[in-house]
Amino acid sequence: MTRKELVHQISSKQSYLCVGLDTDIEKIPKHLLSATDPIFEFNKAIIDATADYCVSYKINTAFYEALGVKGWQALDKTVNYISKNHFKIADAKRGDIGNTSTQYAKAFFEAMPFDSVTVAPYMGEDSIQPFLEFNGKWAIVLGLTSNAGAADFELQRMGSELLYERVLRSVICWGNPENLMFVVGATQPDQFETIREITPDYFYLVPGVGAQGGSLKEISEKAMIKDCGLLVNASRAIIYASADKNFAERAGEEAKKYQQEMKVYLEKLAK
Amino acid sequence: MTRKELVHQISSKQSYLCVGLDTDIEKIPKHLLSATDPIFEFNKAIIDATADYCVSYKINTAFYEALGVKGWQALDKTVNYISKNHFKIADAKRGDIGNTSTQYAKAFFEAMPFDSVTVAPYMGEDSIQPFLEFNGKWAIVLGLTSNAGAADFELQRMGSELLYERVLRSVICWGNPENLMFVVGATQPDQFETIREITPDYFYLVPGVGAQGGSLKEISEKAMIKDCGLLVNASRAIIYASADKNFAERAGEEAKKYQQEMKVYLEKLAK
Repeated sequence: MTRKELVHQISSKQSYLCVGLDTDIEKIPKHLLSATDPIFEFNKAIIDATADYCVSYKINTAFYEALGVKGWQALDKTVNYISKNHFKIADAKRGDIGNTSTQYAKAFFEAMPFDSVTVAPYMGEDSIQPFLEFNGKWAIVLGLTSNAGAADFELQRMGSELLYERVLRSVICWGNPENLMFVVGATQPDQFETIREITPDYFYLVPGVGAQGGSLKEISEKAMIKDCGLLVNASRAIIYASADKNFAERAGEEAKKYQQEMKVYLEKLAK
Repeated sequence: MTRKELVHQISSKQSYLCVGLDTDIEKIPKHLLSATDPIFEFNKAIIDATADYCVSYKINTAFYEALGVKGWQALDKTVNYISKNHFKIADAKRGDIGNTSTQYAKAFFEAMPFDSVTVAPYMGEDSIQPFLEFNGKWAIVLGLTSNAGAADFELQRMGSELLYERVLRSVICWGNPENLMFVVGATQPDQFETIREITPDYFYLVPGVGAQGGSLKEISEKAMIKDCGLLVNASRAIIYASADKNFAERAGEEAKKYQQEMKVYLEKLAK
């Protein structure tokens, strides 16, 4: 999906919501466990119920890998079930030497129809570059993450800047706003303005709203740009809104709440 | 596998060789392509031919993921084929927020019988900790990698040290020499002594010998410790030694060459 197409989706739906499919076999409603593929059944129902309110789905690969071959099958079926109008993110935090990163890119961009994959920057340029070489596909590089561990290295001083700032400044030399986004945690409000100064034209994938406590309002007010520039993810707050038979309906309601709030911020922006 | 068991294997085989199964469908001998599972057939033959000369196998997950569900099946079959006397490494470069890293740990330590997984440190303590909580299992954290991109961040100055040094000094506070190793690229000889000073008691997984040009002699002389403390990986130089019907035999010969050289360094150490 190109940036233009993504922005069109955001504008038509008045939403920049990404629904995170961190589907945990231990947390899905019990009545699904008798299905042939409970994970896929759950995802299908969640996708059907939320598709109108979100522009993106983020599949957290760890939850699928934990189930072995069956999990990888559920992952494959899920990404193929999502419509071409939704921006599909493999939240996989990959990254390795060049020939290996190329294989990861093939896994998500060729063997499966993902639009993007999250990438860890530690190993530098040749670990990221291969993800930038596929037409219409995106690398979403970790900038400043939403977890407590961000303080250990990302927020440590490196010369006149912080490590995550160095990462942002370096990585924008390797890609451009049409094939590169950054992960910026919603739990890091003190840093939003600095981040926007360094990367004024880039989209951010923003986790940390919902279960992790970040504020949708704050990230929207501080980091939204002319064509939005944000994909805000909520996982657990939406997909586990209920553990009963009405789980999908409840997920749809939660997704709609986010969309309604996002609409307000998008309307403010348009004024 | 415990450290004691690993050291016992090294000592009995007089080898600290790790064979890297970066099995690429485009590089394996053509006559295997008609098999039901060519990747597994190739790996099985390579493992049979090299098992006596190595103490470890490292499976590069990217090459399997690139083939979709079939690839994940081949990965699963391969790790289950390797004997319990070989230290099994998932070279997966994982790492995410705590609840997600736990899922990755389950993927490699519970759904599959790996002994260890390589982990990227960018996201800090809570992204690494979950891998350290499984009995007899190991996290192998990226220290200084073998690729050119190591210069972009790992070798950049952070206060009075380099980023990778900060990573080593921090990560040893979260684990211990019985559940934690580091990736140290064989292409970084200038740094071996500093690395050994910071982490005197830790095992290193050393890629970069062979196709990437690092020296087995240099890493062995500069970084070997009393109980060896090294697993030196070679992938392409062994598994693609021949593209003909004799590929497995040739792989065995190459593995034996490494083992013979390693024997010399281990004997020097014993003196």
